Amino acid sequence: MRKVAIQGGLGAYHGIAAENFFVGEEVEIVPCITFKDIFTSIKKDPNIIGIMAIENTIAGSLLQNYELLKTNKLPIAGEYKQRVSHCLAALPGQSIHDIKEVTSHPIALMQCVDFLETLPKVKVVEHEDTALAAKDIADKNLVGTAAICSTRAAEIYGLDILARGIETNKHNFTRFLIFGNRWIVDEIQKDEVLNKSSIVFTVPHSEGSLSQVLSVLSFYHVNLTKIQSLPIIGREWEYQFYVDIKFDNYERYQQSLTAIRPLISDLKILGDYPEGRQSEL
Amino acid sequence: MRKVAIQGGLGAYHGIAAENFFVGEEVEIVPCITFKDIFTSIKKDPNIIGIMAIENTIAGSLLQNYELLKTNKLPIAGEYKQRVSHCLAALPGQSIHDIKEVTSHPIALMQCVDFLETLPKVKVVEHEDTALAAKDIADKNLVGTAAICSTRAAEIYGLDILARGIETNKHNFTRFLIFGNRWIVDEIQKDEVLNKSSIVFTVPHSEGSLSQVLSVLSFYHVNLTKIQSLPIIGREWEYQFYVDIKFDNYERYQQSLTAIRPLISDLKILGDYPEGRQSEL
Repeated sequence: MRKVAIQGGLGAYHGIAAENFFVGEEVEIVPCITFKDIFTSIKKDPNIIGIMAIENTIAGSLLQNYELLKTNKLPIAGEYKQRVSHCLAALPGQSIHDIKEVTSHPIALMQCVDFLETLPKVKVVEHEDTALAAKDIADKNLVGTAAICSTRAAEIYGLDILARGIETNKHNFTRFLIFGNRWIVDEIQKDEVLNKSSIVFTVPHSEGSLSQVLSVLSFYHVNLTKIQSLPIIGREWEYQFYVDIKFDNYERYQQSLTAIRPLISDLKILGDYPEGRQSEL
Repeated sequence: MRKVAIQGGLGAYHGIAAENFFVGEEVEIVPCITFKDIFTSIKKDPNIIGIMAIENTIAGSLLQNYELLKTNKLPIAGEYKQRVSHCLAALPGQSIHDIKEVTSHPIALMQCVDFLETLPKVKVVEHEDTALAAKDIADKNLVGTAAICSTRAAEIYGLDILARGIETNKHNFTRFLIFGNRWIVDEIQKDEVLNKSSIVFTVPHSEGSLSQVLSVLSFYHVNLTKIQSLPIIGREWEYQFYVDIKFDNYERYQQSLTAIRPLISDLKILGDYPEGRQSEL
């Protein structure tokens, strides 16, 4: 049995992704209010595994979550790419015209912006979580309020679905990272081939230095699957890069890190893991 | 006199950045509800200039705004890096303990998350704009509601400032891009040295191809100041890159584009412009 800490309540996309990642195993969800709380849960119970969204095809990267992984030093065990499809859910017996307030997580609200524009008189209220927004409506019997959430959350909390697939872009995927203490990560990765890695590093001077680093990685047949620079304000000539790489040969990958070390500073390996699966469209 | 369309109302950071960019000139702000509306305003009045946030040091890139620039084909005239410092503002005569609801733009709410955690009983409500959130409180005489906005907005709408500098990270800068029709951009850039460019391209295969592109740019002394990959879901082997580059020699930069063309596809130049100034910390 896996205990997995997620940001959000039962029916949250984090929980759905956790169940998909650990398909065939029993999963107990540990709901947390914030991403930070996931790390607190793991400190209290070192057997708990964490799962955290890291990027979304519409909203982009969650830079704060990269920072949390970096500072908390819990290695990544794996990744899962979850299709995100939202519905509008409310207490039974209401039509869409009865809705005066729509509540959800800010990212979900942003992903449904075109749909929300069709409801100009509705007040849009932030909630810390898509599933907890649905739960609140059920618990507090909020007539006239609808949540943007997963159909799973609507079912769990007994809400009627007023509209389905309301996300603007149907190619809406969130990539989740699964992480935990070293011994659990080793156990999860047992018999798996590690062919991906997430690293963070700083390039001291901009003059062609990133291209040198990428050239060296390429000589070792290490390929980029994601790159994002982060401006370091106040340190005008330094850039921090979040890079995801893929490789066929783990030893070659290790050698490539040795080869780029002299060209970079502050190298942090957030984890080596097998490339993840993707849920169906 | 410059007519500048912004997302938000008077006192919004977009307007403050517009005034800083056109320092010494008279600026008339054209408030718009959404970023899309800026382009609609320019279609109606081709002399209007647009300004749009493109990245923030805390929240990351606004990928949707890159997309808007790409599809609307209005060239970039310049950039401005605006320090963003939020305050909590409410109707006069109230203390922070009287506040039951805090309203602002989702990005501003995210930037003040640590401050908001100190007010656990307060309901957080999304607004389409920081300045309009302040205006609403004044217009509708909303007792018990506070806005997260600029001190400028608090002053314009006659609100009391209950807390200043409430953003979590003080190195909170937003980079704004200024754009418009070709002839206006040419006029704005008259006598300016163009040493920066924002480009978007697709790399057909991942095997070392980005490193080749960056190597070629480096041979031409063209340097990266920002890079961000965007996964193209459904086109597993293609990656789109948003890249900002800097150069000393415009002709060399043009040659470098010719040199990378065979290695990439879908190259779009969002604009050549002079590197922008930055507001004080």
